[in-house]
Amino acid sequence: MPTEVTQLIKSHRSIRQYKDQPIAEEVLQEILDCAQWAPSSHHVQAYSVIVVRSSEVKEKLSALAGNQRWVKECPVFLVFCADYYRLQQVCEMHGQTLAADEVESLLVGAVDTALAAENVLLAARSHGLGGVMIGGIRNNPREVANVLGLPTLTVPLMGMCLGYPAQDVQQKPRLPKRAVIHEERYQTERIAGALEEYEQTTSEYYSERTNGQRTDGWTKQMADYLNKPRRAHVTPFIKEQGMRLT
Amino acid sequence: MPTEVTQLIKSHRSIRQYKDQPIAEEVLQEILDCAQWAPSSHHVQAYSVIVVRSSEVKEKLSALAGNQRWVKECPVFLVFCADYYRLQQVCEMHGQTLAADEVESLLVGAVDTALAAENVLLAARSHGLGGVMIGGIRNNPREVANVLGLPTLTVPLMGMCLGYPAQDVQQKPRLPKRAVIHEERYQTERIAGALEEYEQTTSEYYSERTNGQRTDGWTKQMADYLNKPRRAHVTPFIKEQGMRLT
Repeated sequence: MPTEVTQLIKSHRSIRQYKDQPIAEEVLQEILDCAQWAPSSHHVQAYSVIVVRSSEVKEKLSALAGNQRWVKECPVFLVFCADYYRLQQVCEMHGQTLAADEVESLLVGAVDTALAAENVLLAARSHGLGGVMIGGIRNNPREVANVLGLPTLTVPLMGMCLGYPAQDVQQKPRLPKRAVIHEERYQTERIAGALEEYEQTTSEYYSERTNGQRTDGWTKQMADYLNKPRRAHVTPFIKEQGMRLT
Repeated sequence: MPTEVTQLIKSHRSIRQYKDQPIAEEVLQEILDCAQWAPSSHHVQAYSVIVVRSSEVKEKLSALAGNQRWVKECPVFLVFCADYYRLQQVCEMHGQTLAADEVESLLVGAVDTALAAENVLLAARSHGLGGVMIGGIRNNPREVANVLGLPTLTVPLMGMCLGYPAQDVQQKPRLPKRAVIHEERYQTERIAGALEEYEQTTSEYYSERTNGQRTDGWTKQMADYLNKPRRAHVTPFIKEQGMRLT
């Protein structure tokens, strides 16, 4: 007995092609309001959202995110940032200095930001929009920060393209539930079998989607992706932004 | 023109008192399924959820999370973990070594985990449940990892109490929208005024809620909270779990 909400959640797919149809201001603002009703750790509200509609800015961000054309083609592009700049201002208002800038605080900011982002994506989808989250915004974070005028202590974490869907996309199969959801304790003994099963499922999925061009399943893809450091520039960027990450 | 989904999102409040009413297995499983339909960066699916129903385990976690009694009183307690353990297994399956264990990868895991968690909370609320996220699970992460048998490369990020609400709670006012949602560029010039306004709003809110016992607004509370490092043990814990955080 799914609810309207669980049905929406379970019908998720990333949408990268959009109709030439603008998003009404009233709809957009209602969606953005939803960001702020996510829970926040200790109510710190350590995130900000930049709403980008200018073609010029979208073009720049599209290039910086690895030439993802949907970034420039979507009518509205959002950039979600972990944000301690505002909290530093708050400390200064009271003659204090922000000292909470360790990995813990970065995690709090990342979690706050993602909770808000998921609210926004679901709110948008409930209005008939589609979207895709863009981790590529961290490919060139310094340049993104320059384009968006991001102050110290802010970290762009993800982008989000929004628009009315102009494509029909298959859902990507997820890991077998028993590999992700555990009862009482983490069941390490379940993992190997679940991964074998998933390799099979995803190999068939990719093979079908690419007419046999791509037959590697998820485990092979992941092994090839994660056997080298990813975006090693992110750590120095965050430190340059003023977080010590101690 | 809100949708059913945006209405649900915008009526969020944290629920810490629950009826003595169990959550039907079918409902719980439907809610947990929703975790897996969140987007995931590069489809890495770098999170796991531990479902805790045992009173003994809940008692232990309640104590470890700073004696939050709702952790032991809720019928179902979930622990959301960033998880690269499974991805390390994946690398080993293909004779490779996981090298992606920098701050970037931790961020990917934190974001994946939070997106899944927000799906779960909304799914639960759509079924009439209430809940609260528990950052206190990071108060004693080593002990939490021991209780839950968490393997290397997993990091417990947040807990979530779920149960049928037995309390009526006021909504906590959010930051003025102009301090959080920016157009085209981060508007630093808006922050100071918005914070002054919010200090006023929240001072009235807390004063009313505590019959005048607590009159500090949000900015004062945050300045007092963030002028010292928070949970400094989290960084060494994550490194002990095998992430280099380079």
